[in-house]
Amino acid sequence: MSAGIEIVLPDGSRRSLPAGATGADLAADIGPGLAKAALGVEVGGEVRDLSRPLHSGETVSIVKADSPAGLELMRHSTAHVMAQAVIDLFGGDSVRLGIGPTIKSGFYYDFDFADGRRLKEDDLQRIEARMHEIIAADQEFVREEVPYERALATWEARGDRYKCDLIRGFPAGETISFYHNRARDEGEAFVDLCRGPHVPSTGKLAKAHFKLLTIAGAYWQGDEKNPMMQRIYAACFASADDLKRHLHNLEEAVKRDHRKLGKQLKLFHFSDEVGPGLPLWLPRGTVILDVLREFLVDEQRKRGYQSVVTPHIGRKHLYETSGHWQNYGDSMFPVMGDAEGAEFCLKPMNCPHHIQIYQSDLRSYRDLPLRLAEFGTVYRYEKSGELGGLKRVRGFTVDDAHLFVAPEQLFDEFVSVVELVRFALATFGLPVQARVGTRGTEEGGKFVGEPELWERAQAEIVRACEEMGLAYTVEEGEAAFYGPKLDFVVTDALDREWQLGTAQVDYNLPQRFDLLYTAKDGTRQRPIMIHRAPFGSLERLMGVLIEHYAGAFPTWMAPVQVVVAPISDEQLDEARKLVDRLRGLRLRAELDAASEPIGPKIKRARLEKVPYVAILGAREIRESTVSVRSRDDGELGAMPLETFLERLEKEVVERR
Amino acid sequence: MSAGIEIVLPDGSRRSLPAGATGADLAADIGPGLAKAALGVEVGGEVRDLSRPLHSGETVSIVKADSPAGLELMRHSTAHVMAQAVIDLFGGDSVRLGIGPTIKSGFYYDFDFADGRRLKEDDLQRIEARMHEIIAADQEFVREEVPYERALATWEARGDRYKCDLIRGFPAGETISFYHNRARDEGEAFVDLCRGPHVPSTGKLAKAHFKLLTIAGAYWQGDEKNPMMQRIYAACFASADDLKRHLHNLEEAVKRDHRKLGKQLKLFHFSDEVGPGLPLWLPRGTVILDVLREFLVDEQRKRGYQSVVTPHIGRKHLYETSGHWQNYGDSMFPVMGDAEGAEFCLKPMNCPHHIQIYQSDLRSYRDLPLRLAEFGTVYRYEKSGELGGLKRVRGFTVDDAHLFVAPEQLFDEFVSVVELVRFALATFGLPVQARVGTRGTEEGGKFVGEPELWERAQAEIVRACEEMGLAYTVEEGEAAFYGPKLDFVVTDALDREWQLGTAQVDYNLPQRFDLLYTAKDGTRQRPIMIHRAPFGSLERLMGVLIEHYAGAFPTWMAPVQVVVAPISDEQLDEARKLVDRLRGLRLRAELDAASEPIGPKIKRARLEKVPYVAILGAREIRESTVSVRSRDDGELGAMPLETFLERLEKEVVERR
Repeated sequence: MSAGIEIVLPDGSRRSLPAGATGADLAADIGPGLAKAALGVEVGGEVRDLSRPLHSGETVSIVKADSPAGLELMRHSTAHVMAQAVIDLFGGDSVRLGIGPTIKSGFYYDFDFADGRRLKEDDLQRIEARMHEIIAADQEFVREEVPYERALATWEARGDRYKCDLIRGFPAGETISFYHNRARDEGEAFVDLCRGPHVPSTGKLAKAHFKLLTIAGAYWQGDEKNPMMQRIYAACFASADDLKRHLHNLEEAVKRDHRKLGKQLKLFHFSDEVGPGLPLWLPRGTVILDVLREFLVDEQRKRGYQSVVTPHIGRKHLYETSGHWQNYGDSMFPVMGDAEGAEFCLKPMNCPHHIQIYQSDLRSYRDLPLRLAEFGTVYRYEKSGELGGLKRVRGFTVDDAHLFVAPEQLFDEFVSVVELVRFALATFGLPVQARVGTRGTEEGGKFVGEPELWERAQAEIVRACEEMGLAYTVEEGEAAFYGPKLDFVVTDALDREWQLGTAQVDYNLPQRFDLLYTAKDGTRQRPIMIHRAPFGSLERLMGVLIEHYAGAFPTWMAPVQVVVAPISDEQLDEARKLVDRLRGLRLRAELDAASEPIGPKIKRARLEKVPYVAILGAREIRESTVSVRSRDDGELGAMPLETFLERLEKEVVERR
Repeated sequence: MSAGIEIVLPDGSRRSLPAGATGADLAADIGPGLAKAALGVEVGGEVRDLSRPLHSGETVSIVKADSPAGLELMRHSTAHVMAQAVIDLFGGDSVRLGIGPTIKSGFYYDFDFADGRRLKEDDLQRIEARMHEIIAADQEFVREEVPYERALATWEARGDRYKCDLIRGFPAGETISFYHNRARDEGEAFVDLCRGPHVPSTGKLAKAHFKLLTIAGAYWQGDEKNPMMQRIYAACFASADDLKRHLHNLEEAVKRDHRKLGKQLKLFHFSDEVGPGLPLWLPRGTVILDVLREFLVDEQRKRGYQSVVTPHIGRKHLYETSGHWQNYGDSMFPVMGDAEGAEFCLKPMNCPHHIQIYQSDLRSYRDLPLRLAEFGTVYRYEKSGELGGLKRVRGFTVDDAHLFVAPEQLFDEFVSVVELVRFALATFGLPVQARVGTRGTEEGGKFVGEPELWERAQAEIVRACEEMGLAYTVEEGEAAFYGPKLDFVVTDALDREWQLGTAQVDYNLPQRFDLLYTAKDGTRQRPIMIHRAPFGSLERLMGVLIEHYAGAFPTWMAPVQVVVAPISDEQLDEARKLVDRLRGLRLRAELDAASEPIGPKIKRARLEKVPYVAILGAREIRESTVSVRSRDDGELGAMPLETFLERLEKEVVERR
């Protein structure tokens, strides 16, 4: 018997290696090309350092730069290189490190400068240059494991509160790992507390395409009572093309900023006098909101929903019964206490009001499922510093509905809800993913109700996803306080993810409000509630869509669909008639009556991102045609009016 | 020369009478019939006692029971008779009188019983009986004029605070008039402080058809710090038919009470948990609200209005600038003060928000008139005791719009506004009257802005009414705090008046917010605002319409327009298809799928006041017809489906 080990490769083949062999040894054993390309190993779903010894029987795959795991390794290791570069440039003694995790498009690292240094944009280039030197030096990443007490004592002695805070975050007695960078000729170059894993040496990062982007302030551990650190964000990809695309998307995102476009296209307005986070919708923005509402009302009517209207306030006691007051009070506006001793709250959610409608009548199985829908405007108190355009506001309209269902109806109704959400979001050409937010391991506190009911609700949500073939991830602790939820996350034209729609199963509020219905057998039973909102918040959706479309809304949504432009004042009367005809067909048409050449008229329509300009000259009128200029397809030339109308109608009906 | 006087009659003819001749003498001089019928005289628009001396040259007409002035005289005198009857029955020493004015359908009188007596419904019959005795006794009404000081001294001596309060309401030195009733044989029967005039004697009241209706509590002078008096309401008309119709309307009003019908027809709901005065709209009520909105949005679109959406809260400072805080603060909900030191208010009106939209951009003459419309839900704080169903609520939706106009546009725009309000209200078959609410003589206090601007605005409103041939009355002191207004008052099917729509001209808010636009000549000018709401409040309108229609909404508004009722389960599939077909035509159709005979199905639809039941039996299906039962026209028999659809469409399109 050899004293070696036997490793299983992903294709099922086996390979014998000497005892104590590492991932690097395995890669070298397979071939010199792989040895060079290897960044780490994956063993049973876990990525590890290439230098860690392997064990007999393990299934091992070599991680290279072209895989997600490889990119993750490169990003994490490049973050360490950035930290080292900052220390090298700005003096090791004065720099304290926070954390340096990877993010979707790269990584960041948080720094605290004892000497009060404020990083400037100029510094980023110098840091990048130093990073390239460190990579060229091909420093080795070396893992060290240190007992808890010794690790804490060491960093307490060095007076590093950040490291100490992190170490204290582990259970006492745990082994703490550090990663050292060792320059080939100069010894220790850098050390940080780190779970790892890392690439074997900085030289491997020559394949990492990165760019330092911005400097931002960030409270240590996200707590505003802690010191403010300086965070450097970096993009990092495995190819120059990926980085280029990402940088392009970032530039494009600045151009498409919905706050800028919203002003330029006159969609919405924020007023200091009304207050922060409280958008006022201008006429053109209101048109789009109305189109979105009509679209959803129509789809909901087909599916048996009924509309209701409820007030924007309710007595505090209502929210105590629902549990919002105890579990969501921090997000509510201050109470209004009146002269008669009553206390009112602005509603942060519509569910308690819809429950009052359920309770306005005796309910029987014949009434179920009862699907109550409302575009309900809610108010949530966010700190003014945390507000951002339409994406984080204090007042917003939820395309809300609450379904009250019998237990045997739950599954079908939930599937139908998921179908509607998917359909509604797909209308904008937005790819949809799902996230199941569960109670996780947290007991009580943030969540109300019995764990058994939570389990049941989570199981129904997961079963519905699977039934529908909807890919989902599970996010522990991300549930609503009253029940688990299914969040819908879309990816926009710039590869950014946004959480929009949501669907939730709730056994708790029916219990808290003692909701009942008479079953077929005459017994009194408790219904289950489904909370759902395909768009989530109309305001947030608008923020996302403005940027997704760069303000160039498809015809069915565009505030102005057609500008009618006469070539000269002689065609003004005919142009007016055409506008009236288009409006009679419920198309949103406007006349450009300016006594100007056609050029400025076309330019104006382009700036306003109007899908079509219908140009009327003497010849068009003689021949009963219009010359059409499409925003998206350019000059379409003269065409019979009917052809143009068909094209418009098709785009509106098909929502293209 | 005769020492007599010459009187002009309404037809221009002249009649000579001896000096000192009275109205009674004039009537007798004309003829014995008139002498008997005469109740008073009218001189230069003022009604006077028949016993007052006439003066040479006066134009005098004799007032009889068949004129509004005659009815007024009878009501006022009958009120005195009622007061006398109460004193006769319950002991003169313990009864103190408040006031006893006429009202639209009769009169009331307020009483205070020193012995603590509580009037009961049973007492009303006894009082009526005594009143008929007093009328039969034909007591004379005698006017007495007493100097201020003596009047006050007399009633102070008698310890009557009510009379003293009333006397002190006159300027010191004024002559105070009292009316005595003198029984022909017994002398003084009754006295009360009174401006008069009265009929000559109670015998004339044999023509007054009256009925005592209810007893209610009423604070002396409407002030809750004063004692609560007991008020008896009475109906009083000049003919038995008029009284009968009025009593029928009262009974009908109880049956039609929108609170009762709202519950029965499942239109809306009040929840103690949400709070008083805050209606929740159930699905069927929401359908009607949506129909009303769509109707108005459509009409407004045709007239160049643009929709906007604004938040339900704003910073307190906004309302300080507008003047709401100082002038309307008592009607606002309590302020919400947040942790950052900001103060927010629930908006009581939409104008400040629409002004923010005006100010969101530089405005030029090309933007005017700018017509911003919003179904804006506002919140006003009323004492909970003053709330009543939908007609007096704390949260309601105004079909609001604000027009920002250049001075030269004001008149045409205001006329167009009045036209829309009249058109909108006429849609419900409600006769419309107008009331101009002015600042009146009150200076400052309740009103903001310069009197000159008020004058200008009032003049424009009156000019518009006259241009449109709209009859109006002027109500002093009834303006909004920022400007005069034109209120639209409708008369419902039960002859009751309700104030609904409003249109206001406002020079003040543009000044307070420093609104400007660039005129054609490049100068900066101030626009004028028009505030307008054709329905006023959707909630209040709904309350009025439910009672006006007795819940039987016309087809275009009905929550369910057609119930499709199969005769047996065998027609269930065809019935379902018919429902789908009707829904495809945007008609609100429902299936009655109960396994029951047709009778209960028809009865159910009748109780729900559904305009049509479409009955499908084997024969109807064979012959492609439906048997139609109309709520309003009864059985219509079998008809081709197309005929039925045409009828429905006509009723919807024509809003009949």
